[in-house]
Parts: sequence; C-alpha cells; structure tokens
Amino acid sequence: MNYKMMGRFIAQILAIEAAAMLPALLISLGYREGNAARGFLWSIVIIAAVAAVLWLLCRGAKKGFYAKEGLTCTGLSWLVMSLLGCLPFVISGEIPHYIDALFEMVSGFTTTGSSVVPAVEDLSKGVLYWRSFSNWIGGMGILVFLLAVVPVSEQKGGFTMHLLRAESPGPNVGKLVPRMKQTAIILYVIYILLTVVDFIFLLFGKMPVFDAMCTALSTAGTGGFGIKNDGFASFSPYIQNVTTVFMLIFGVNFSCYYLLLLRQVKSVFRDEELRTYIGMIIVAALLIVLNLRGYYETLGETIRHAMFQVGTVMSTTGFASTDFDKWPTFSKTVILCLMFVGACAGSTAGGFKIGRMLLVFKILGRNIRQILHPNRVLVVRNNDDVVDEKVLQNTNGYLAAYAIILVVSLLLVSLDGFSVETNVSAVISCFNNIGPGFDVVGPMCNFASYGWLSKIVLIFDMLAGRLEIFPILVLLSGSTWKNK
Amino acid sequence: MNYKMMGRFIAQILAIEAAAMLPALLISLGYREGNAARGFLWSIVIIAAVAAVLWLLCRGAKKGFYAKEGLTCTGLSWLVMSLLGCLPFVISGEIPHYIDALFEMVSGFTTTGSSVVPAVEDLSKGVLYWRSFSNWIGGMGILVFLLAVVPVSEQKGGFTMHLLRAESPGPNVGKLVPRMKQTAIILYVIYILLTVVDFIFLLFGKMPVFDAMCTALSTAGTGGFGIKNDGFASFSPYIQNVTTVFMLIFGVNFSCYYLLLLRQVKSVFRDEELRTYIGMIIVAALLIVLNLRGYYETLGETIRHAMFQVGTVMSTTGFASTDFDKWPTFSKTVILCLMFVGACAGSTAGGFKIGRMLLVFKILGRNIRQILHPNRVLVVRNNDDVVDEKVLQNTNGYLAAYAIILVVSLLLVSLDGFSVETNVSAVISCFNNIGPGFDVVGPMCNFASYGWLSKIVLIFDMLAGRLEIFPILVLLSGSTWKNK
Repeated sequence: MNYKMMGRFIAQILAIEAAAMLPALLISLGYREGNAARGFLWSIVIIAAVAAVLWLLCRGAKKGFYAKEGLTCTGLSWLVMSLLGCLPFVISGEIPHYIDALFEMVSGFTTTGSSVVPAVEDLSKGVLYWRSFSNWIGGMGILVFLLAVVPVSEQKGGFTMHLLRAESPGPNVGKLVPRMKQTAIILYVIYILLTVVDFIFLLFGKMPVFDAMCTALSTAGTGGFGIKNDGFASFSPYIQNVTTVFMLIFGVNFSCYYLLLLRQVKSVFRDEELRTYIGMIIVAALLIVLNLRGYYETLGETIRHAMFQVGTVMSTTGFASTDFDKWPTFSKTVILCLMFVGACAGSTAGGFKIGRMLLVFKILGRNIRQILHPNRVLVVRNNDDVVDEKVLQNTNGYLAAYAIILVVSLLLVSLDGFSVETNVSAVISCFNNIGPGFDVVGPMCNFASYGWLSKIVLIFDMLAGRLEIFPILVLLSGSTWKNK
Repeated sequence: MNYKMMGRFIAQILAIEAAAMLPALLISLGYREGNAARGFLWSIVIIAAVAAVLWLLCRGAKKGFYAKEGLTCTGLSWLVMSLLGCLPFVISGEIPHYIDALFEMVSGFTTTGSSVVPAVEDLSKGVLYWRSFSNWIGGMGILVFLLAVVPVSEQKGGFTMHLLRAESPGPNVGKLVPRMKQTAIILYVIYILLTVVDFIFLLFGKMPVFDAMCTALSTAGTGGFGIKNDGFASFSPYIQNVTTVFMLIFGVNFSCYYLLLLRQVKSVFRDEELRTYIGMIIVAALLIVLNLRGYYETLGETIRHAMFQVGTVMSTTGFASTDFDKWPTFSKTVILCLMFVGACAGSTAGGFKIGRMLLVFKILGRNIRQILHPNRVLVVRNNDDVVDEKVLQNTNGYLAAYAIILVVSLLLVSLDGFSVETNVSAVISCFNNIGPGFDVVGPMCNFASYGWLSKIVLIFDMLAGRLEIFPILVLLSGSTWKNK
C-alpha cells in the first residue's frame, strides 16, 4: 500500500472541505448567528490543521497507485470527511451529540437526506446551507471534484482512473473523453449549469433566495435535506412540479447530457437504461394514481403527488410532498420496490441502479437459456454491445453483498424494538440513499428515536450505498491491510 | 420437445397419485366419513382415468430426454399433480372453493404448510391424512419416488439424471452412488426409517396413533400441516422437543445419513454446510433466548420455545409451539432472517439453502479479492474442492431470480391492502415453503383472508420455491415451447 500518496490525497480532500465551509461561515456571519459562525470557524481551523499535518507527514510519496489504493482511499476519504465535516453541528450546539451529528453529515454527503433533527426550521441558516451543500458535493462526488481541480501533473499513473471508478455510481463509468481530468470538468460544468437552472425556476415560483439555493443544491445532489419541517407539503404546486422534474433530471446518467451537447440525440434515446428509467416512472406513477382514486380531491392533485413521490424515490432524493406513509398498502409497496432500484448509473442518485438491475435480469435470462441449451455459448448484451464477463461477475457480487448487508443491518437495527416495517424501510432507505422510510421513520418523522448502535449501522449502510459497497468492504477486509 | 415421453411420464405420476389416495379413502371409510370417502373415491376415478387416457395417447414415445424435457416435465408434473390432487377437498365440500383447495394442495406438496382452513379440527380424518401425506411425499419428491419404483429398462438415456436434478433441492445433487435408481431407493429407505422412528417417539409421548402418524408425516416432509388449531401449543413439552429434534434432523442433507451408514463419520462432520447449519441453529436460538429474557416463566420454557421456533423456521417446517408473532421485534427479525435461509441442500426442506448461501458469500469474497488483485486467477472452493464456474453462474442466477420473484410477488399481494409486514412475511414464508408469517398470516392465523389473485401468486411462489425456481420459470419461458 502506498500510504504516503493516500495521505496526501486525503489531505487535499480535507483542504477542499475546509474551503467549502467558508460560504457557510459567511452566511452565519451575515445572518448574525454567533454559535453557528463559531462552529464553522473552529471546524475550518481544525480541518485545515489536520490537512496540513497530514500533507507534511506524507512528503516524498512514491509513484504507484493501483485499484487497491484507489478503493481504500475512496472509502477513507469519505469517512474522514464525514468524521470532521460534522464538527460544526456539534460545536454550534445545534446537534449536540457526536453520533447524531455524524449521522446527519454522512446522510448529507451520501445524499441520503435522512435526518435526526426533529425541527429543521430551528436550525441556523449556516447549518441549513452546509447540510444542503453536503448533498450537492456528495452527489457528484468530492473526489471527482478534486480530479477536476488538481493539475494533470499530480495525477500519476492509474491514479485518476481508479478513484473515478471507485466513486462514480453504476456498473460502468462511461468513458466520455479519454482524459479523466476533462471528464471530471465536463461533469461538474453540466452539474453546475443544471443546478443554476433549477435555482432560477424556483425563484420564479417566488421562493426566497436562500430557500431556493438550499433546495436547488439538495435537489441537484438528489440528497433530500429540506428546510421545512413538513418537507414540500406547504410549497406551492408549481414548486413541487419543478422539483419533480429536476429530481428526475438529476437521476439521468450525465453522459446523456454530454451526448446531447454533442447533438447525438439518437444514441441518447436508444440507451436502454434511460428508456427503462422513463418507462418505470410512467408505470409506477400510473399504478399509484389508479390505486389512489378518491384519496385526494382532484385527479390533478393525485397525479402531482404520485409523480412527486415516484420522482423522489426513484431519484433517491427523499423529499415528500405528502405523507405517503398513510397511502394504501399497494402504493406503499410500489414505493418500497422503487426504493430498491434507484436511478441511472452515472447520475447523482444512489440505489442499486437501473443499469445494474437490467444486467441482473439479463444474467438470469441467460441462465435460463443456458439450462435449456447447455452447450451453447451465450453472451449478455447492453445497448447491442457484449458485456464483459468480469462486469457480470461484479454485478453478481454486488447483488450478493447488497443482500447480505441488508439482512445483517436489519437484524442489528431491530434490536431497538421498532416495528418490522420501520426497520425494513429504514435500512432500505439509508442503504439506497433515499431518506425517509415508513412508520416511525416516515416522511413526516425522523431517525432521532433510533439508538446509537442502529445509527452506526445506518451510517455504515449510507456510506456503503453511496460508494457502491466495495470501497467500504475493502476497508474492512483483512487482505487490504496486509503487505504482500 | 419429446412430448410423448413427457406425457407417459406424467401419466405414471398421476397413477402413483391415485394409488397414494387409497389409504386416505380407507381411513375415511374406517371413520365412516361419507363425504370425504366420496371425495376420495371420485378423485381416484378421475385421476386414474386421466392417467390412462394420457398413457394411451402417448404410445410409441421416441428416445431422447434432455435438460429441457427434464425441467419442463418436473414443473408440469407438480402442477398437474396439484390441480388434480385437490379434488377431494372440493368434492367432499371441506374446502369448497377450487382456488382455496388448490392453495392447500400446493401448500401440501411443496411442504409449505400454509393453510386456508380456519379450523383444522373440523376437517375429516381422511382429509387430515391426505394433507399430511402430501407433505411427506412432497418432501422427498414424487419424481424421486417414481425413479425408485420404475424399472431400470424404462429409464432411458439422461432421463433419470435430468429429473432428479430438477426436483432435488440445493445447488448440487450429491452423487451417492453412480446409479440413479439406487440413489432414489436409498433416499427413500432412509426417509421411511426416520419417519417411523419419529412416529414411535411420538407414540411414547402418549399421542393417539392417528395424530402421531399425521404429525410424523408432516414433520418428515418439513411440511408443517398440523392437526390442531393452535399448532403445537397444546402439546406436551416432550412432544414439542421430539418434534424440534426431528425437524432439524430432516433439514440435514440426506447424503450425510448415507455416509453415516457407511461409517464415514469424519467426512460428515467436515461438511461445511452441516457445520454452518448447526452453528446457525445455536446462534439463532441463543440470540432469541437472550432477547426473550422474562418473556416466559422459566429459562427452560424459553429455551424450548426458542429451539422449537428456530427448528421450525430453519427446517422450513412451519409448526409453532407459541405465537412468535407476539415476540419482540429483534426475535421476530431473527426468525425473518432465518426464513430467507432454509436448511441444507439435499434435505426435505425448502428455502434458499445453506449451501447456496455459503456459495454466495464465497463468490462475494472472491469478488473483493479480485478487485484488489485484478490479475490473479481466483477459484471458489467447497469442502476443499474447486467449484465449477457453471455452478457459480447458476447460483448467481438463482439469487437474481429469487430477488425478482420476491419483489414482484410482494407488489401483487399488496393489492389486498394488508400491512407491509403481513405481505412481506407471507411472500417469504410461501416462497421458502415455511408456512406461517407475521401479523394477519401469523402462526395462529391462516391465509384465508387473501383474495384469489394473491392466492394464485402465492401458489406460484410455493411451487417456484420447492422446485428451486428454474423448472417453473422454464414453463413460462417462450423458448421452451419453440421447436428448434
């Protein structure tokens, strides 16, 4: 293991984190929030100091950065980032207990949006901004951000590729352009542009500037940290609809937007994953609308709420325009099933990913055909290309890890004695980076009632979900830390 | 497809079914149950007639029986067997609706033990016997039975192997002895002996002969059809403990008993699956005992109920000595997790199977090592032998099919509007051939309240679970019915 290089890398990440806290500090100062400002100031000092010490300790790093280092580094950076990023919550006294603050921070960076704060409206503006910003930076990935700003000379052999691969969601990173740095820049430019457009649309809906900024950041990261206690229920239908559209937009593979910029419209709409995504949204919304007949006053209202909730769950954002925990069981089950799926690979969304789900279906289809015709050589295709057997193996491994983590988490979380429905939905929701679940952790409730053990389990689930399991499992695997 | 050979095969299965109904007819006559006797008599006539017509229609079958025919035939025989086997329930008027009767029959043959009968004690002795016998014959498999009795001359090329492979539970059929017919006979001899021993132990507990017979049959098949409304709650601790032991015995791979007969004790206790099975039983029971402190009056009672419930769920039998639906959430979740696992491959139990679970873990472990060392060639081992990649592929396909069927079933079943907990546990319980679930389908309740659509979905799940999915999926696959 190239520990020095890893140390330098984490130092850089922490430097970016400290810099990213500056706007939050300024906002706190602007709104004259003394405690919050103190929290951010001290946190910036601490994080910067840790970064500086780490940087100095790790001088003279040798070259050589392989898959092992890439995965470990990704897992470690997210962990360290969260461990230190939650300091403002604690120092300002707004979330006094460290485990709670860590839960909130991990929930932010992983774009989950589950909260332990009972009354969001009591939080200071600075903290509200930091929560929403953590959704935003976590959505596209802070490592990707680093790659976009670090000079090419620093990006030694294999360095960028292994990191980008470890942090980006989905079974395969679309190779937009051959150079990784350019890829990272293009991704972030598209991301910033779309966020700004969302912000402007929200302003048109007469949302205050600060609220619109936070909402746009949380939406773009498909995070779901809100600024109101009742989520989106009290916002106007216009704002709800705008947010539905943007949640769905941020659930699409960003490669598609790049291809659109290059006017390759055809190849975008031939994309199997995108077509499945759109198809699933329509079918799910339709099923819920049919099931909710007579639940709301008008058909329009029903469609609006159905679309919003489908959008929020498929994109793994986690806002809520209505208390869907009170919906009839069938609609709740549709929501529960969507929770398992998540949105497209290469988007800011969490979850299992549609692309991976399609592969699982195709692998199963091949299996059946293989049993019927034992001697034929059969391949799995995606968008007409043959998928490499290694990718299929990884997809299978992913499914296995996913199932095992679900079951073990469920078991541990159930020690707190809440209902099976609460626990199942809490674990699925955190693991897929959605946010709310059902019953005790329903959309109008929060995760505060869970004990510290459950919170740690859910923190693990959120990180494992966002980083697609392997970088986190690698951290726990003995063979990672053994020297050959 | 060799339709004629398949037809002859199904005719033979039906002939066995008709013959197997004779004892039930005699019991009904003995107890002077007019309606039940009429039900069995007519059913025997109808089934025998169908068998005879089919046999005559399919004269002159050619040789050639491949995996495709084997799988299709297995799926079809179980379907036809259930469609006709439930006739006595309907004709006797004891379960008047056909879908209900079919549900009960499939539940019997698949050794699930879920019932739609609200008051089991009102049923006639003949019907009670037929229910328990269906558990017994379904446990080891009626096709295996057929193989044991059909003369070798009939068993043309590939015939037996493909059938045995399709019907036997678990990722691999242990090749006990080279000849399939002998294997089938040995399996059934061990099975009958163990059933008789259980029966004798129950008689020692002062159980009436008829009750002991039915209970032994249901236990041996790990089926779980009971003869009392409260399951095992009113039986003596002795009978509960005997049943715990036998449920666990029938959850062990029968190859182990054969090896014990050959005095290869060492290789039995080196078996990874068996060791995991025993380990899981101990750990699960321990966790539940710890969680249930103070729930029952004495520690002895707690241990007895914990062991019974762990035994019933791990072996997928489905009896209950207490209403575990009322247990604290943690214990319920332990039960829920065990429901996913099932017992050993090659036993009479249903479920995912421990052997397959071990493979899933090992595949995941290899995946992690492969990511860390991309260029090494890594293999998966079981009991020190390298596992063939095809077996691994099938295991992965199985996991995928398992997950997909669970989600789709859950969605359909939820249309009836019961709680999420009810639906989740009902689907898992039926799919893994256990029997009871939680809440509305808890151990002291039944499946009668579900609508016909849900019942059909659950019937599909039970069959898919017992036959390990592929024979049933093959029936639904278009390419099965296409001629090359």
